[in-house]
Amino acid sequence: GTAPLLIGGPCVLEDVDTALEVGRRLGAAARAAGFGYVFKASFDKANRTSIRSYRGPGLEAGLRMLGEIRERLGVPVLSDIHTPDQAAPAAEVLDCLQIPAFLCRQTDLLVAAARTGRPVNIKKAQFMAPWDMAHAVAKVREAGGRGVLLTERGTVFGYNNLVVDMRSLPLLAEIGPPVIFDATHSVQLPGGGEGCSAGQRQFVAPLARAAVAAGVDGVFMEVHPDPDRARCDGPNSLTPDQAEALLRELAAIHRALTP
Amino acid sequence: GTAPLLIGGPCVLEDVDTALEVGRRLGAAARAAGFGYVFKASFDKANRTSIRSYRGPGLEAGLRMLGEIRERLGVPVLSDIHTPDQAAPAAEVLDCLQIPAFLCRQTDLLVAAARTGRPVNIKKAQFMAPWDMAHAVAKVREAGGRGVLLTERGTVFGYNNLVVDMRSLPLLAEIGPPVIFDATHSVQLPGGGEGCSAGQRQFVAPLARAAVAAGVDGVFMEVHPDPDRARCDGPNSLTPDQAEALLRELAAIHRALTP
Amino acid sequence: GTAPLLIGGPCVLEDVDTALEVGRRLGAAARAAGFGYVFKASFDKANRTSIRSYRGPGLEAGLRMLGEIRERLGVPVLSDIHTPDQAAPAAEVLDCLQIPAFLCRQTDLLVAAARTGRPVNIKKAQFMAPWDMAHAVAKVREAGGRGVLLTERGTVFGYNNLVVDMRSLPLLAEIGPPVIFDATHSVQLPGGGEGCSAGQRQFVAPLARAAVAAGVDGVFMEVHPDPDRARCDGPNSLTPDQAEALLRELAAIHRALTP
Amino acid sequence: GTAPLLIGGPCVLEDVDTALEVGRRLGAAARAAGFGYVFKASFDKANRTSIRSYRGPGLEAGLRMLGEIRERLGVPVLSDIHTPDQAAPAAEVLDCLQIPAFLCRQTDLLVAAARTGRPVNIKKAQFMAPWDMAHAVAKVREAGGRGVLLTERGTVFGYNNLVVDMRSLPLLAEIGPPVIFDATHSVQLPGGGEGCSAGQRQFVAPLARAAVAAGVDGVFMEVHPDPDRARCDGPNSLTPDQAEALLRELAAIHRALTP
Repeated sequence: GTAPLLIGGPCVLEDVDTALEVGRRLGAAARAAGFGYVFKASFDKANRTSIRSYRGPGLEAGLRMLGEIRERLGVPVLSDIHTPDQAAPAAEVLDCLQIPAFLCRQTDLLVAAARTGRPVNIKKAQFMAPWDMAHAVAKVREAGGRGVLLTERGTVFGYNNLVVDMRSLPLLAEIGPPVIFDATHSVQLPGGGEGCSAGQRQFVAPLARAAVAAGVDGVFMEVHPDPDRARCDGPNSLTPDQAEALLRELAAIHRALTP
Repeated sequence: GTAPLLIGGPCVLEDVDTALEVGRRLGAAARAAGFGYVFKASFDKANRTSIRSYRGPGLEAGLRMLGEIRERLGVPVLSDIHTPDQAAPAAEVLDCLQIPAFLCRQTDLLVAAARTGRPVNIKKAQFMAPWDMAHAVAKVREAGGRGVLLTERGTVFGYNNLVVDMRSLPLLAEIGPPVIFDATHSVQLPGGGEGCSAGQRQFVAPLARAAVAAGVDGVFMEVHPDPDRARCDGPNSLTPDQAEALLRELAAIHRALTP
Repeated sequence: GTAPLLIGGPCVLEDVDTALEVGRRLGAAARAAGFGYVFKASFDKANRTSIRSYRGPGLEAGLRMLGEIRERLGVPVLSDIHTPDQAAPAAEVLDCLQIPAFLCRQTDLLVAAARTGRPVNIKKAQFMAPWDMAHAVAKVREAGGRGVLLTERGTVFGYNNLVVDMRSLPLLAEIGPPVIFDATHSVQLPGGGEGCSAGQRQFVAPLARAAVAAGVDGVFMEVHPDPDRARCDGPNSLTPDQAEALLRELAAIHRALTP
Repeated sequence: GTAPLLIGGPCVLEDVDTALEVGRRLGAAARAAGFGYVFKASFDKANRTSIRSYRGPGLEAGLRMLGEIRERLGVPVLSDIHTPDQAAPAAEVLDCLQIPAFLCRQTDLLVAAARTGRPVNIKKAQFMAPWDMAHAVAKVREAGGRGVLLTERGTVFGYNNLVVDMRSLPLLAEIGPPVIFDATHSVQLPGGGEGCSAGQRQFVAPLARAAVAAGVDGVFMEVHPDPDRARCDGPNSLTPDQAEALLRELAAIHRALTP
């Protein structure tokens, strides 16, 4: 079969040097593991819990940074968009547009992303059943979109908690597109805490291993050189060392299950 | 205390005559019950399950219709916005701007709504804990917004189902703003079905009675002269007759609990 | 229609005097409110979180106490049984046998209770859908049981939390038997804490009012003269004063909705 | 490390020949995979959905059959008990006593099982948080029980559905005992259907692979030569062929992760 994919990078763009450092480490680790690699970071975190949270450099500066990262690392880059008007400028730089989970039912956003001709990675909303993602995929396809990916990132489980239903992975695969497991957002504890989602880094590795064993086409992870100082999603980010070790395990599982 | 509020109308604007008919019936029923009344209908359903579903007349034509309804009925009108750029034009016509549940964490949308100076009705996301709505309220207030309302509309409960946690009503009230119970969206069965959310109309009345008895400042309901032909949310809409009968019960409960 | 029912008393039998004090207060409050009254206390708490928790006087001494309470108060008494062999001795004293929620699928227990000829109050398990209680009712009826009651006491909602789905009340009523709402166990936070379920007493009143407004045949509540010293379920028990005030509200709602 | 464990057999004892056939196949497959093997079947299904469902041969005949199976296969046997008085007779035949999930908070049952001196496999209730199983383990240990195992079999997820939270596996392991993943009960759809729990056999393999990759000490599966004719749990049982193929995958994952 095809090589599995690693999508990863720092949660939000802070500076180009940090991004390049993370991207280099992940790219090398992916190569060593036999995975493809796509760099990911957000230029804007549009739905932070608090209005005072760091949001990133914004569309224009962020795309400039992503373009530089793309050129210097020589890898495809992916980022998320939040309103339909961001689709076209983002598509000039990015290799793949991502639809945030909370927005995956916003028809105009899906259509705008589809019309750019770039592949669209749709994150499954925490409030949706796996089979209902077929409607999101249909919206992209009917708008002329060609490539679609679907990303699992956990489902609402009571208050301030998410659960990953591993049945979702084969169910999403039945819809058709490649399925990515977002290992770091899946361990978020949404809300709760001082205006910042908490997270459970200790479950990233077991959940990622479980997802690869259940069967996925790729894994997504947020990585930061110093997660406790990350300006976003630190509690669920991995260090580059942790990401490398995990990737070795994921590759071993993948090989064990590949005839 | 203050009179409770009825917010209601057809789910989506179809034509002015239907809207006026529903608005007149609900206005009269609210007056008879001692409730205040605000007309509500959407000019765009931006997150329909399917790309082929009817979305409404759109921003411009919709606001024109809402302006006409406002003038002819002599009641305040409310509608929802989906992107920050809709806030200013909507505020020229509407008395209250509503933030859809899926979008209640989109900072820019909350800020844009707040800056219009109009009161903002924030629907609690199906994926959020009641206490986390304090962050959404803070975003509106820190952007200079004055009036805020919070609306409960059910919480994710497994797949394709919502549950109303009545503890949410006092919990939202503790945050500060008046609390509205959305009786008809709370009985939706999200997704599931042929590209259209199903609903359980038979539970609108018991849940609305329960919410008023638990304690709310207002009730929201979608009403259509012929729900089975409604172009949106028919399965959970009430007829005007059903709405009138329910409003009488709600008023009786409210009086029974008012010293 | 028939008068609604109050089932109540201290969670677990501690001593006869406390039980009589609570029973007298609840009986008088129920009479004043136009409710029927059944005394309830457990002789054994067979599923306490910790092995060191107080369990009660046990079957023999407990039934003796319940017999004395029954005679001195002149009201029917109800208690729960945990194994099939407890059914017959319990039925010699009790007017109604209760099946604990966790045990409501244990066929032998339901059958043994049914065979005593006493009415059986089956508590809906926290893990069951309302409609599936039809199977529990059928087991009692097929074993010759005559009277059945069904009690709602909340449903699993993530970890260490319960939610009351008020749709459950009309759904249980459709099965046939009278429906009771257990207002104090419904606010438990199961597990969590030092070997003792926590509880949220502040939600007993809004949930009980909501249930009566949604429509039930009776309400269950645990009452203790000094809840903070109760040997079981203190965090969710009411004082007699609180129970009286709540009962007045419930009666007002019930009257407001009775034609 | 130690070899992982396979616990498996037909859900309920039907006849000795079927049980021996399944046991032989599973024993051979386990050996080939480097797993230990324990035979499991129930002598009584005490909580079937309907009173008319087949329950098994009962305590006495069932233990006789289990003794014969144990002798002829030369493997340890495990079965579940439902009331305290079954513990002692069961312990005369069985190598390990199992506590059903719904009953895992029944103190007397845990204590009676512990006192037999046999290891006790406690299934985590569908209504419990992983960390709360520490209380069940403590009950067994304080009653003098020596060996304890903990089994994950899914958690309530809305109505008529279970989800396996893979975070549970490391959380249970932190409590201390070996952790087993029950791959076939975890795909049950409780209730729903004509007095019989439905199941989703297609998810047994991905969930079992995921659990082994996340990290467990053993796997439990129900196997029947002709699942569609099984008298219990057919919809979630595997055939011996399916079990063998799955066991090969599980062994491959286990080896890939063992340094």
